[in-house]
Amino acid sequence: MLTENKLLTDIWRENRDHLAEKEDLDAGEIEKGLEQGSIVLLANPAHPSVLPTLIGQPSRIKVNANIGTSPFINDPDLEIKKAHAAAEAGGHTIMDLSTAGDLDGIRRRMLREINLPLGTVPIYATAQEYIRRGEGPGRMDPEELWAEIEKQAEQGVDFMTVHCGVTRRSAELAGKSDRVMGVVSRGGSLLVRWMEENGKENPLYSDFDRLVKIALRHNVTLSLGDGMRPGATADAGDRAQWEEVVILADLAEYSRSRGVQVMIEGPGHVPLDQVPAQIEGIKRLCSNAPLYVLGPLTTDIAPGYDHIAGAVGGAVAGMHGADFLCYLTPAEHLTLPDLNDVREGVVASLTAAHSAELALGRTPAVRRNTAMSKARRDLDWEKMAALALDPVRVAKRRKDFVGKKECAMCGEFCAVKLLTGDSG
Amino acid sequence: MLTENKLLTDIWRENRDHLAEKEDLDAGEIEKGLEQGSIVLLANPAHPSVLPTLIGQPSRIKVNANIGTSPFINDPDLEIKKAHAAAEAGGHTIMDLSTAGDLDGIRRRMLREINLPLGTVPIYATAQEYIRRGEGPGRMDPEELWAEIEKQAEQGVDFMTVHCGVTRRSAELAGKSDRVMGVVSRGGSLLVRWMEENGKENPLYSDFDRLVKIALRHNVTLSLGDGMRPGATADAGDRAQWEEVVILADLAEYSRSRGVQVMIEGPGHVPLDQVPAQIEGIKRLCSNAPLYVLGPLTTDIAPGYDHIAGAVGGAVAGMHGADFLCYLTPAEHLTLPDLNDVREGVVASLTAAHSAELALGRTPAVRRNTAMSKARRDLDWEKMAALALDPVRVAKRRKDFVGKKECAMCGEFCAVKLLTGDSG
Repeated sequence: MLTENKLLTDIWRENRDHLAEKEDLDAGEIEKGLEQGSIVLLANPAHPSVLPTLIGQPSRIKVNANIGTSPFINDPDLEIKKAHAAAEAGGHTIMDLSTAGDLDGIRRRMLREINLPLGTVPIYATAQEYIRRGEGPGRMDPEELWAEIEKQAEQGVDFMTVHCGVTRRSAELAGKSDRVMGVVSRGGSLLVRWMEENGKENPLYSDFDRLVKIALRHNVTLSLGDGMRPGATADAGDRAQWEEVVILADLAEYSRSRGVQVMIEGPGHVPLDQVPAQIEGIKRLCSNAPLYVLGPLTTDIAPGYDHIAGAVGGAVAGMHGADFLCYLTPAEHLTLPDLNDVREGVVASLTAAHSAELALGRTPAVRRNTAMSKARRDLDWEKMAALALDPVRVAKRRKDFVGKKECAMCGEFCAVKLLTGDSG
Repeated sequence: MLTENKLLTDIWRENRDHLAEKEDLDAGEIEKGLEQGSIVLLANPAHPSVLPTLIGQPSRIKVNANIGTSPFINDPDLEIKKAHAAAEAGGHTIMDLSTAGDLDGIRRRMLREINLPLGTVPIYATAQEYIRRGEGPGRMDPEELWAEIEKQAEQGVDFMTVHCGVTRRSAELAGKSDRVMGVVSRGGSLLVRWMEENGKENPLYSDFDRLVKIALRHNVTLSLGDGMRPGATADAGDRAQWEEVVILADLAEYSRSRGVQVMIEGPGHVPLDQVPAQIEGIKRLCSNAPLYVLGPLTTDIAPGYDHIAGAVGGAVAGMHGADFLCYLTPAEHLTLPDLNDVREGVVASLTAAHSAELALGRTPAVRRNTAMSKARRDLDWEKMAALALDPVRVAKRRKDFVGKKECAMCGEFCAVKLLTGDSG
């Protein structure tokens, strides 16, 4: 891959030592991953301050935070604040999923102000115009979609979700099956509607080579969207879902052969017992391309707590090979997240990622974890806060007990103190 | 078991139909579980309003909430409020772990005011006296511990954690190993210290039959505590831990032979990849006695978010056979939980329990889950709230959008609306 993608080669050369150190991996191992496509390097040279970021195990499992305006909550300043909050909480990438207001302006501002890799779903911007004019998205002119993709690549977007596997065949399978939820992907449902109304194939599929060429010119990483992902645990693993994965496997292979970096997007709502087979199946089918999962959510009945249901699925998914976790916040399925939700969502996903890495025996995770246990044994609260995923929250919860050695939970009943003979 | 335990037999007969309906199980299946000891029925006849509660799969996985005063936060009214909050959030049992103030008064009030089964750790009350007098817990007179246990059984406590497996041998193994955290159980560490200072065996082990007799007289369920549980993921699965489980297996067998109901307490801090083996190993060793787990926590670096790390471990544990999840709250390892933490902790554990039940294909879980997905497909917000684990939170997050059909997340971009043709 590196040989066909000159931009990628240059970015890798410039950042090689730094990235190897950051990931605690041998540079040669990362380079092999980049060549084979099991690792991608997110960085569009047009995104001025971007921190080039590796996705793909054995690189650290990364966490993405979705932000963006909606027709009901349309405040670009707030969305910028959320992006900063996600970065502060330890998120690794941001996706701007705005669907209301000046989408171009918001995106340009994000690219200027945020140094985490930025992802988008270009079809939202195209569809927004039609929805605003009161026209159905079935009226969409594919040329406008292509122009939007090209423009966003030029603006500096680092990765793009493109629902190329939403074909007439996969849509037909979704329609024929007894799915409870049908199609729950916004981009996917726009394309299904377009195909139905126009009696044509999805242009992102039929004209895939055009996408590949744009991506190559800007080192945009294609994130092949899962428009057919299950939106209910009851729908997980059906024919529409796997048909789409088979298509994505084809497209991933083609992209790589052209030097274009590619990730696969995965589920979705999946019962816990099916998570290992889903993750391992998708990674095998797609020749180990980095897998970017949304959850998976292991139950449908936890609205208000979907970040927790997502952490359950994300941890198990990570242990079985998922590389990139899209956060879920407590607002999922209900409303847009506020600043607190963003923080909560990022740390929930980091908890899942770290649980997976520990289970996989990754050196940096094991080291940090053991250091925390030692700090706990020593009742060293400053060190505990420093090693915690969220030092700010630890300090906040401890604020009434600063200087006290025990925690306020056990006091003199502290098991650690009892056995070190410290207790009266 | 039922034949030797007259109280249990009576309670079961009285509640048989109601419990079978509540659990959506055949009464004969439950009865078989009670006879074999794979299910226990928490209910001390002296606890006036207690709701008899079954623990042990295929009964629903249950959730316990720990509350109680500490030397730093000693407000009995607040603890009663927390118990009510836990019940309202859907918790199934309460443990009063108070270690400060008038322990007897708090416990009697709980038994009067709370109708969920109440658990305690009697050694806390005994040790509290010594700690208050400035004497080390090594001075403890075992007769006072026995008197405390008997008194609490008479008061109506439904289940008691007794660290009977903390023996000189298991403590020696913990000392000899390279554990990072040593012994983190409060009851366990009190007993280790007592054994060390007195050069004697743990009376709860050497005089176990005395415990069994008290338990039988009051139908107190013994919860055989895991004093040697790992308090760091690095310590999971060591010799001290398994030595204790072997001892507990012996004691569980003896208890059952005398008609006494018994549960096994489990870890603790366990890396995600080791959770299935731990759970299946403990259940096999202990002939399928109900397993009551604390977490397990799958990472040590998430203080402030330990309810999430605990949900990850709890979901996987439940799927592999754990029967009873002790909640963790966002305050774990930092301070006592407040009312909000209690609610958050209970729902996090319910999310884990439900994820496990769904994975196991349990009928009530599947039914509720699919009903939720259908309500979501129909954009029926009232039904979604009613089916959610926390209807109050759903209503709160939706309050600005009442009457709107879409959620504020997607608005006109609603995938469901796009495909039903509802969109402009």
